[in-house]
Amino acid sequence: MSDQLIIFDTTLRDGEQSPGASMTRDEKLRIARQLERLRVDVIEAGFAAASNGDFESIQAIARAIKDSTICSLSRANDRDIARSAEALKEANRARIHTFIATSPLHMEKKLRMTPEQVLEQAKQAVRFGRNLIDDIEFSAEDGYRSEPDFLARVIEAVIAEGATTINVPDTVGYAIPELYGNFIKNLRERVPNSDKAVWSVHCHNDLGMAVANSLAGVKIGGARQIECTINGLGERAGNCSLEEVVMAIKTRKDYFGLDVNIDTQHIVAASRLVSQTTGFVVQPNKAVVGANAFAHASGIHQDGVLKARDTYEIMRAEDVGWTANKIVLGKLSGRNAFKQRLQELGVELDSEAAVNQAFTSFKELADRKSEIFDEDILALVSVQGSSHQEDPFQFVSLAQQSETGERPHAVVVFSKEGKEVKAESDGNGPVDASFKAIETQVQSGAEMVLYSVNAISGSTESQGEVTVRLQRNGRVVNGVGADPDIVVASAKAYLSALNKLHSNKEVVAAQG
Amino acid sequence: MSDQLIIFDTTLRDGEQSPGASMTRDEKLRIARQLERLRVDVIEAGFAAASNGDFESIQAIARAIKDSTICSLSRANDRDIARSAEALKEANRARIHTFIATSPLHMEKKLRMTPEQVLEQAKQAVRFGRNLIDDIEFSAEDGYRSEPDFLARVIEAVIAEGATTINVPDTVGYAIPELYGNFIKNLRERVPNSDKAVWSVHCHNDLGMAVANSLAGVKIGGARQIECTINGLGERAGNCSLEEVVMAIKTRKDYFGLDVNIDTQHIVAASRLVSQTTGFVVQPNKAVVGANAFAHASGIHQDGVLKARDTYEIMRAEDVGWTANKIVLGKLSGRNAFKQRLQELGVELDSEAAVNQAFTSFKELADRKSEIFDEDILALVSVQGSSHQEDPFQFVSLAQQSETGERPHAVVVFSKEGKEVKAESDGNGPVDASFKAIETQVQSGAEMVLYSVNAISGSTESQGEVTVRLQRNGRVVNGVGADPDIVVASAKAYLSALNKLHSNKEVVAAQG
Repeated sequence: MSDQLIIFDTTLRDGEQSPGASMTRDEKLRIARQLERLRVDVIEAGFAAASNGDFESIQAIARAIKDSTICSLSRANDRDIARSAEALKEANRARIHTFIATSPLHMEKKLRMTPEQVLEQAKQAVRFGRNLIDDIEFSAEDGYRSEPDFLARVIEAVIAEGATTINVPDTVGYAIPELYGNFIKNLRERVPNSDKAVWSVHCHNDLGMAVANSLAGVKIGGARQIECTINGLGERAGNCSLEEVVMAIKTRKDYFGLDVNIDTQHIVAASRLVSQTTGFVVQPNKAVVGANAFAHASGIHQDGVLKARDTYEIMRAEDVGWTANKIVLGKLSGRNAFKQRLQELGVELDSEAAVNQAFTSFKELADRKSEIFDEDILALVSVQGSSHQEDPFQFVSLAQQSETGERPHAVVVFSKEGKEVKAESDGNGPVDASFKAIETQVQSGAEMVLYSVNAISGSTESQGEVTVRLQRNGRVVNGVGADPDIVVASAKAYLSALNKLHSNKEVVAAQG
Repeated sequence: MSDQLIIFDTTLRDGEQSPGASMTRDEKLRIARQLERLRVDVIEAGFAAASNGDFESIQAIARAIKDSTICSLSRANDRDIARSAEALKEANRARIHTFIATSPLHMEKKLRMTPEQVLEQAKQAVRFGRNLIDDIEFSAEDGYRSEPDFLARVIEAVIAEGATTINVPDTVGYAIPELYGNFIKNLRERVPNSDKAVWSVHCHNDLGMAVANSLAGVKIGGARQIECTINGLGERAGNCSLEEVVMAIKTRKDYFGLDVNIDTQHIVAASRLVSQTTGFVVQPNKAVVGANAFAHASGIHQDGVLKARDTYEIMRAEDVGWTANKIVLGKLSGRNAFKQRLQELGVELDSEAAVNQAFTSFKELADRKSEIFDEDILALVSVQGSSHQEDPFQFVSLAQQSETGERPHAVVVFSKEGKEVKAESDGNGPVDASFKAIETQVQSGAEMVLYSVNAISGSTESQGEVTVRLQRNGRVVNGVGADPDIVVASAKAYLSALNKLHSNKEVVAAQG
């Protein structure tokens, strides 16, 4: 069996399915570039048939990314698969991923199909896909809760039809390492043509064991692909997290004996990019990428660590991209220094015009903030990347005041489909007043379901990065805004969320 | 072997050791009450010899808690152990937990002791402790990286001296479930008197496997105590998380066949209390207690869930305390309704005066905010609980304004050791201006290392709860402030952090 472990990242597909994590095409493209820099083997870029937006994102990623295989999810029907193949047309390496549920519960309650119908549809889907693209992955949704006899029949049949990767997900996060590992092992032993495909694991974290289950699927079960996401993003408690599973394979090479292609030095940058883009914070005690994951990253050294580093540390912070050089640029930094730092941070802007625009924003920021940190630069391009000339709502200016005993008041000037409007309102606080002011002119009917602030760096001069999550008719969007003034950042985030609600893309629910 | 699994919570000891998570006595007491409500078997309340503050916290918890065993950590020396016994004097059930490192690396580099010296000291410590209290836990620090032969000798010896619980921690989070489970199993088989003690596991999450490792220690290894923390709080990537490990034991009773005493309905309240107290956010995709952990808690229903709940859900949100009745009180609610809701939320205030003060704050809040949520009430008592008459800095009032093109400006009035001072400054934003204003009068010399905001509820009328983390000479404190006006909440949080810096408690680093 190969010693090479394939890392399949589904941040842009299963990760994006988390309520509130939806991303624009440009955001996805930026994340895909970071995944390529990480040397992810396969990037699942989306679910082509889910929406036109998803289709276009996959298409853009397929064009831009050269090293990683680009994958599109498809239900087990010809239309979905053809749509995936079309979106992937320009990819250097393309994969179609098709799935159908095989557990009794899902077949009966969700699909309302008999096992024989499911078997036929799975075969038909793989056959159809294989005529379009050579690299076909088949997933048995809710595989871990499926009858092993039936599942083995389905897998044997789809391998015979040409499936090159077989994925057995623990869709609901119900597995235990020992049981899941043996489940995969038994399946592999039972399926006569099992060696004709690479076996894959896809675990959810509902009981906190997605990483351990994935690794047991590899070690005990013999799988050679792990499906995972940056920060463990994903529906409910999320997916197996890429950074944890990769660092476990590397740190415990004595046990796993496997190679991965991942360039771990880009892990922290990838984590921040995904967190900034989705507004999903990373808790400080998150393994590998949390602010406290490495004691010395937070400036605290225990006696033991001072005497010998490995008394308490099994990984090195530098190996995953935690660096000490934080202050990077200031007011006097020129365009070249700025451009170079962008490159070092792995940010590729699409055109010189985009670089110029980012540099202008940078100079504006440097006028107001003496030290510019990497995080400031990332926020700047990430926020800029998510706003567009064609967006209906654009921030112009804001004035607000609050005083103990008085009702806070805000005046927000913004453009609404090209026309400048001035809105004012009072509120419970200056942020509330700003949002209410905007709503006097917009009347979106949306409900705010999340408001979060990240100080972009530690100093009191921090820029604030605000995420506003709005919900309307079951659709959830995130807007992001950054500014040293938290009220301004909030108003920008609110307008950005309104812009996203405005771009009314349809979304079809995909595999869990 | 017993089918009863002992849950040992160390949120107040190992959890508190996270940089930035230090808590006051009253905060610890409140969390201890919530842990008792959860029916945690053993509460590790602190490390008595670490500081007077720790000693007093343990003493207060030992007095207040009746149902759970209260435990104090001690290095393996007479002074530490005597100090623990003294702090625990009034406990209904008391345990002394003593530890010494047994791995070659820790013995040589950290302790600078020979194995024979470590063995002697371990025996001596347990003997000394056993003369004071019957319930003695012994931990072999960095146990998983210890030589099994030596470790078995130490364990046999301390059981012979009367240790009733034997803990074999994976101090650095290096273990893999299969290996860790077998490590414990082999030790238990090799130690002749192993059945005279309960075996315990204590896992760290550096590779994301603390929960799976703990469960393997139980299932494969035969341990019957799990050491864990709420939200997985703890140094670096934290400890095994109580909510995940308990829900795994319950959800997979078919596999584990074990009983736990935990009343899971209090899990979400415990998670919020710990998060609010420490300022450590819980990421949305955190298992069990993250905002997205249950799809329907975020208002999003997938097709499958609508057809049959168990297609995608293996636990019920209600079982861990996610409830739908969110709006609870308003302007017209009386003192009795408020007091009753406090009880339902598990908040016990120390005196009628404290209830009255909380009710006054509640009425003030209700004047400014039409709907009061459970979270508002928890924030109110949590913030109130962390401020004291004797604190040197008290917030009085604030006025601030910002306008595009102008420099933001703030005037903060606060009392400083009883004297009212008026401070003003401009800044990059109104929050920055407020902090700078305070510093013009205080000159604390502290560095801000974290600024975070939690909107306490989803609506645009949200109260903001702000955490400010300050660092000075390696000491890290958190201040918390809540107010519908985010600038006011920020100023309150800043003053609260200054108060904590002022109470200059000494802390000794403990076991990792």
